[in-house]
Amino acid sequence: MYTLHDFELGTPMNALERAKDFQKFTQQFKTYPDKHYWIESYSGVDARMELEGSTKNVSSFIANDYLGMSQRPETIEAGIEAVRKYGTGTCAAQVIGGYLDIHRRLEQEIAQFTGQEDALLFSSGFGANDGTLRALLGPNDIAITDAFIHASASAGLIGTHVKSFGHNNLEYLELALKHSQDAYKTKLVIVDGVYSQGGDLARLPEINTLCKKYDAMLMVDDAHGMGVFGENGRGTAEHYGCLGQIDIITGTFSKSFGCVGGFVAASHELIEYLRYYADSNIFSAAITPQVTASVLKALELIKRQPEIRRKLWDNVNYLRSRLLEEGFDIGDSVSPIFPIMIRDTQKAYDAAQMLREKGVLAISIVYPAVRLREARLRVSVLASHEREDLDLLINALLETDKKLGIRHG
Amino acid sequence: MYTLHDFELGTPMNALERAKDFQKFTQQFKTYPDKHYWIESYSGVDARMELEGSTKNVSSFIANDYLGMSQRPETIEAGIEAVRKYGTGTCAAQVIGGYLDIHRRLEQEIAQFTGQEDALLFSSGFGANDGTLRALLGPNDIAITDAFIHASASAGLIGTHVKSFGHNNLEYLELALKHSQDAYKTKLVIVDGVYSQGGDLARLPEINTLCKKYDAMLMVDDAHGMGVFGENGRGTAEHYGCLGQIDIITGTFSKSFGCVGGFVAASHELIEYLRYYADSNIFSAAITPQVTASVLKALELIKRQPEIRRKLWDNVNYLRSRLLEEGFDIGDSVSPIFPIMIRDTQKAYDAAQMLREKGVLAISIVYPAVRLREARLRVSVLASHEREDLDLLINALLETDKKLGIRHG
Repeated sequence: MYTLHDFELGTPMNALERAKDFQKFTQQFKTYPDKHYWIESYSGVDARMELEGSTKNVSSFIANDYLGMSQRPETIEAGIEAVRKYGTGTCAAQVIGGYLDIHRRLEQEIAQFTGQEDALLFSSGFGANDGTLRALLGPNDIAITDAFIHASASAGLIGTHVKSFGHNNLEYLELALKHSQDAYKTKLVIVDGVYSQGGDLARLPEINTLCKKYDAMLMVDDAHGMGVFGENGRGTAEHYGCLGQIDIITGTFSKSFGCVGGFVAASHELIEYLRYYADSNIFSAAITPQVTASVLKALELIKRQPEIRRKLWDNVNYLRSRLLEEGFDIGDSVSPIFPIMIRDTQKAYDAAQMLREKGVLAISIVYPAVRLREARLRVSVLASHEREDLDLLINALLETDKKLGIRHG
Repeated sequence: MYTLHDFELGTPMNALERAKDFQKFTQQFKTYPDKHYWIESYSGVDARMELEGSTKNVSSFIANDYLGMSQRPETIEAGIEAVRKYGTGTCAAQVIGGYLDIHRRLEQEIAQFTGQEDALLFSSGFGANDGTLRALLGPNDIAITDAFIHASASAGLIGTHVKSFGHNNLEYLELALKHSQDAYKTKLVIVDGVYSQGGDLARLPEINTLCKKYDAMLMVDDAHGMGVFGENGRGTAEHYGCLGQIDIITGTFSKSFGCVGGFVAASHELIEYLRYYADSNIFSAAITPQVTASVLKALELIKRQPEIRRKLWDNVNYLRSRLLEEGFDIGDSVSPIFPIMIRDTQKAYDAAQMLREKGVLAISIVYPAVRLREARLRVSVLASHEREDLDLLINALLETDKKLGIRHG
């Protein structure tokens, strides 16, 4: 069984040889009736999807659109209105003329929602993380990162020092902070609010306290927390009562806001600095009018219709209790993201295939998204799932377990 | 006069101190009646714009939407239809379920249009460059780059060796190729098709020959060439008769396609490899349905309505001959991008302000987009400009020259 580990940069080949050799990886999937990756969808990405190779709609658990915002008439109409008013794109960098009044409105709304002074938008969430980090950290600085932070943050750290601490391990974190105290100009601790593959939370209050103790800055990538956690959906910081206490919050518009793109929210001074130094913003065309307007509408709905979030949590709580009842290993998940731990790459592929045959789309998550021995199915639950989708999933998992033995991790 | 050079990573401060210190940069603009950067627009970004601080529409020369695609009813309606069908976003990475049938169609169309075997899409053009490069080049490899390549390519090169050669200087390039012959696994030469700040072209045929001679790969970022150059608008490669001979072509949807996002087009094997290793694609939500559909429509219009491109070139040729007639220094520009060389940062700001007062928006381009002593105004011409916009610009430049002396660079 080939994994993506086998064809990485480190191999003693050049790029063309590596690409040629890599075809062995995709070839091995030809024995499965259905595709595992790059499955074409004939419909929007939602709780139900119409997929290549399926005769009818499948119940899908792959979207991160936790509140179902991408398919709501309100967000759709808001987006359409903006396309009509502003056009299909904003074909200039914001700094030199591509800065719409609705961009500014969204910056202000995001700043307020995250409890920060100001915010900056990016056409991709990936760019929000890596562009921000390239602007802030260089050869004299250090990033002290949880081992499980998202790839988009790691991509921004190639030019600086990095110390990674065991996932959520506060002792390691304190050690790393202690050891780097006087050696670097900027010390920035980076964690995710909600971890994308495990569905567990950062231990934010303790981490924040440690940062203050050792005079380090704290950046929280709350991509999966925003809209989901906290009494008002304001994210992991609100959930922990830390609103306004985090130096830098980044996030995405491709989860609870139902679109694509991202933001960084921080102090006026930091944001003003990033407006001129975050390369992925200043050398990039602005996010589209449609996305900007749809996200503004999604934010309004998040504030005004808490019942959408309640429906999400009803679904989460139901699935959670059913999965635990049936003895599935869901790790430390406390969020809409459920890892169904399988811990074997081949078995994870087989399980995904069996689910697919029962009308369920859940993706096998393997290296490099998770460690080699931590292969899993990733299930993400949406407000737009109905009880019958969840029951279908549980029954499909139980039948898959009978054949493969995937319970208890 | 402070420049952005003064507050970069290298300064002996931490990120917070640097951000605080940086406020001096923005403060210095307060003496100008109008904003230089981050000007809010109340309208779409087009040939005419309704701007913060202006009483009426200004003639704007800052958009890269060369064919005016962002404002055409056909692209707008195509986008709207897609939002209605697929929703406001595709809230999953393409590899694990966020891969729409229209994404696949656009990949195929782009591959065909650029003369490559296959293509991969990104939610930002910046991500297309930096994600592709991070996947292909590591510590055993080298990028040999024109000194003026775009920042998005440079951002992908932080983890590999880089040798930069003088802009379009083939002797330097050959020397660099000769010296790196056996020392690296992958040798990748990177050039822009059309240079974003100078408007001149890469010397593609000669560069291609050198790459073949020294067994190096060639990547052309044709962000500003696509839709503009070549008999059929297929870009710089078509212009030079090199279609199908370039290893990797990258591009953006935020210029001639009127939206945002980007692509990489190459061989089947390379694209297949990038489908699993280009971090900014696989760890990123897909580009939106609206953008995908609007770009598909723009591509169709580029093919079916060459008169749009002809209108662009009429404008380019008119402006070009008028500027040369009047003795302005436009460097080596042969494209819709005109640098009005001023070579003094303060004067460039003053000139932009004077133009603004005459109802013209053109941005002063200073460090780091260009070298410190190469400050300029950047004018980009669109198919949607009318003759009166171009005349307004020329007259405003002439009046500005009377006060400031900006002719002859």
